[in-house]
Amino acid sequence: MRKILREESLPEPEEALSLAISTLPPKSPPIVEVPLLDSLGRISAVEVSSPIDLPPFSRSTVDGYALKASNTPGKLRITGKVSIGEEPTISIEGGQCVEVDTGSMLPQGSDAVVKVEDVKVLGEEVEVAFKVPSGLNVAWVGSDLAQGEVMLSSGELITSEKIAALAAVGIDRVKVFGGFRIAIISTGNELWSPGSPLPPAHIYESNGMYLASRLRELGHRVDGPLLVKDDYNAVKGAIEDAVKRSDVVLVTGGTSAGERDYVHMALSSLGKVVFHGIRFKPGKPTIMAVVDGKPVFGLPGNPASTVMVFDRVVNRYLSPHSLNEPMTMKGRLATAVKADRNRHTYVPIYLFKSKDGWMIYPIRFDSHMIGTLSSSDGYLALKPGEIHEAGEEVEARVLKLDPRPVVLGEEDPSFTFSKGVRKLLVGSKPACDGLRYGFGDVLVISSLMCSPDSSEYSMKREVNWVGDGMTVGYVDWVGMSLLAKDAQVKVKSPSIALKLVNRGRVLIPSTYAKGEERVAVETLHVLVGERAKGLWGLNSSTE
Amino acid sequence: MRKILREESLPEPEEALSLAISTLPPKSPPIVEVPLLDSLGRISAVEVSSPIDLPPFSRSTVDGYALKASNTPGKLRITGKVSIGEEPTISIEGGQCVEVDTGSMLPQGSDAVVKVEDVKVLGEEVEVAFKVPSGLNVAWVGSDLAQGEVMLSSGELITSEKIAALAAVGIDRVKVFGGFRIAIISTGNELWSPGSPLPPAHIYESNGMYLASRLRELGHRVDGPLLVKDDYNAVKGAIEDAVKRSDVVLVTGGTSAGERDYVHMALSSLGKVVFHGIRFKPGKPTIMAVVDGKPVFGLPGNPASTVMVFDRVVNRYLSPHSLNEPMTMKGRLATAVKADRNRHTYVPIYLFKSKDGWMIYPIRFDSHMIGTLSSSDGYLALKPGEIHEAGEEVEARVLKLDPRPVVLGEEDPSFTFSKGVRKLLVGSKPACDGLRYGFGDVLVISSLMCSPDSSEYSMKREVNWVGDGMTVGYVDWVGMSLLAKDAQVKVKSPSIALKLVNRGRVLIPSTYAKGEERVAVETLHVLVGERAKGLWGLNSSTE
Repeated sequence: MRKILREESLPEPEEALSLAISTLPPKSPPIVEVPLLDSLGRISAVEVSSPIDLPPFSRSTVDGYALKASNTPGKLRITGKVSIGEEPTISIEGGQCVEVDTGSMLPQGSDAVVKVEDVKVLGEEVEVAFKVPSGLNVAWVGSDLAQGEVMLSSGELITSEKIAALAAVGIDRVKVFGGFRIAIISTGNELWSPGSPLPPAHIYESNGMYLASRLRELGHRVDGPLLVKDDYNAVKGAIEDAVKRSDVVLVTGGTSAGERDYVHMALSSLGKVVFHGIRFKPGKPTIMAVVDGKPVFGLPGNPASTVMVFDRVVNRYLSPHSLNEPMTMKGRLATAVKADRNRHTYVPIYLFKSKDGWMIYPIRFDSHMIGTLSSSDGYLALKPGEIHEAGEEVEARVLKLDPRPVVLGEEDPSFTFSKGVRKLLVGSKPACDGLRYGFGDVLVISSLMCSPDSSEYSMKREVNWVGDGMTVGYVDWVGMSLLAKDAQVKVKSPSIALKLVNRGRVLIPSTYAKGEERVAVETLHVLVGERAKGLWGLNSSTE
Repeated sequence: MRKILREESLPEPEEALSLAISTLPPKSPPIVEVPLLDSLGRISAVEVSSPIDLPPFSRSTVDGYALKASNTPGKLRITGKVSIGEEPTISIEGGQCVEVDTGSMLPQGSDAVVKVEDVKVLGEEVEVAFKVPSGLNVAWVGSDLAQGEVMLSSGELITSEKIAALAAVGIDRVKVFGGFRIAIISTGNELWSPGSPLPPAHIYESNGMYLASRLRELGHRVDGPLLVKDDYNAVKGAIEDAVKRSDVVLVTGGTSAGERDYVHMALSSLGKVVFHGIRFKPGKPTIMAVVDGKPVFGLPGNPASTVMVFDRVVNRYLSPHSLNEPMTMKGRLATAVKADRNRHTYVPIYLFKSKDGWMIYPIRFDSHMIGTLSSSDGYLALKPGEIHEAGEEVEARVLKLDPRPVVLGEEDPSFTFSKGVRKLLVGSKPACDGLRYGFGDVLVISSLMCSPDSSEYSMKREVNWVGDGMTVGYVDWVGMSLLAKDAQVKVKSPSIALKLVNRGRVLIPSTYAKGEERVAVETLHVLVGERAKGLWGLNSSTE
């Protein structure tokens, strides 16, 4: 029996999270005490206050002479030396000074230090020619941290800088959250483990690998991924077993309402379903259930959905104490974007540096596109029905900033690029936007889409029909998309279209295949920006 | 013999890096092949192209009926079913359709899928009431990744999203950079290992702990930190031994030109010094030498210097192939900032969210302040002599975004705050800036510094002199700094000043100690923003 998840009645992601939390309040992960160095990248489970003042005593910050500022300018008699690590036995009176190293404890009576290079040393005396301000070159006791000052909060990520600060106040062990035992089950008859050749109609399992790596990164202990066939008893049995040996169970695939989507059925039979379906794209068919008092999340089989639902719902349920905030950045949209009418929508983006700041490029995307997602720089989180025009400023969540020069535009086998570039050969539309807004280091633009005023190089290529059968065309980003309005298959580049020649009627440039029917001639314009000189060239074998 | 590092003649950090690279070209780290899951967080050592098209075949993206779009609208006869993971044995002719699951392979002859909920099923037939566009609900072969498409570049960080994509194309092992064997030596008579009580005039070792954790994070194998006394033979011997068993040696402390700064002497005797001193703040006394064909870096003993020089010079020498770009963000300066006249200057910052975007707050800072550095959100990288006024837009490097409501301003023992806030009780000046620019969730402002138009709560407190001897005052951020112009000791809060009562003449509010001589009365105004309602309160024991 098929069941249909009507969007209007589904909870929003925030509601789903609240429902999960109120139905089964998330447990605190176990707290473990680890040696300081092993706390790197973990989440502090307690608030840590400094047990000492830092610096623990007033210290010289230079090599020089400790003195009483009120005795300057003038000649001061050197009465001794305080080396670093030594407790001073002398104190400073009247016209005296004491030699100190960087880091030496200040002797009693001194309130400033002059640098060795700022005085004249005359035998047993130093001559200070200027009025020394009190406090000069001194790191006063407690000026960095006061005893009792909070230096690490519960929920805070422990970075190497935090480790340095904790060491500096004498702490050598830290209490961190120990993570949960989390079982991962990937369901689906079509799934095949990476590493061996793929049988027909199968796909490689990737959701479980994503979850395993992400959970490890977050400090959890991972059990799985276990691959299970679409069989009611197998799915049910796997969940039952996993619940017994874990704190949390994550199941991917089979969460929809199809005939072989056994996860919902199994969860209904084993426990209580908290929600089934959320108003979120990608990731509508998300389930949460409570089985034997433990949370079980069912995530969609599409990999981009699993990534984004994990981020938006599951991880927030698992880490209520974490203070990690995603990086965000404001930028201008290079092209319009809109959310699903009914669902909160995550849209992956490219980030391009323009002369006016960051430009945000929403990517044409579907929830199965894990390759595309993994090459993106971040995403937009949009509310249902949210629409933005090109040029509007929006806030994006940032996953990475790629420092490489960007090649943007059409592909052609005659072009070569240096190793150090980021190739995004996704068509002329983004390249035309790059021309308009000033981003992209090499732009390869088809005259079918737009024409620049000038270019470093241009070449003509014929566009031809090849093959028989269904029409294979291009996504709207590629220049030739304008010639194949009714394409049944839409692909994103000529190199992919070429592979479909034996399956359909393909629109293909002459540089990829000889044509049977000439449709048009396009000119490819190559624009090379300052940062990209020498990164682009012509393939000598095709010249 | 003291040697003085004259700034004018020192190389800039970029020059120092170039000098290091040209004198001893950095080795490529060894390349190791690891199972996919173990590649998380590592740097790819090779370019990886997809061995297959993704999806490997054209698939339905919904549960429904595969059909030929040109046969709609109309009634179509269901001639079979293609389940997920099955290779279709049937193909579609004329007025036929085939039931499919989400992910099923499309049967020959079909070019679109209608959702089960969008049709009427009448026994053996489905009625499609609308014209189906070709390609509807189909994920075409290769539409995510084409065979041969680059999906991971050499030097790229392997994230969990990348792991998902690599798994999706069947890859189960990845070649990553294996890291170097790096020895860490921390020099200094004053150093003491964290974990046991500190003897007088000593400080806890933190530089070595910082480097060990940071190097581990970057994938290197760490040897040490080894603590060595300021003794020429001990330092020289430790470096000699370390060079024998490692690829790279990092020494901290003793890099200046003081009498007990033996690192320079030892390196000159053991090998060739490439540079000594760089025009960088914090971190001028940085050394690089080549010993037995291996690089040895000497980093300053001040912990903030070690952190920043490692980032700016050492790590870039060790990781020439890495594509990791620091996160940056534009924001407006809440207060003026200026670089050292001669040196490139890194200034730690707080990041505060205002209604107009991010405000950047440069922190009062000295190179020994590792506690302060570790609580910062990022830093500004300024050129020698660079000056910016309050309100100017600048670009900052971002280490973290703290999501907590911020309490900013003066401390008082009568105030309590909820656990979930970020307390930055650094004085009224930042709080007054917060008032002006609209940041900070709870502002605690002294009337000595500025006065808000209104506040949720206000209290008067006397300010008194207590104690004898040298004057203890406050950094310019604290309201009372206006009353103690000539303070010899400057501290950043009344709680630290209180500890100095037995050592000097302290200006202290009546809420901390009874006064001997009343200087002024200040009013503390508490402003509570929308996000912080209920996070602030009065300590009942002091009310």
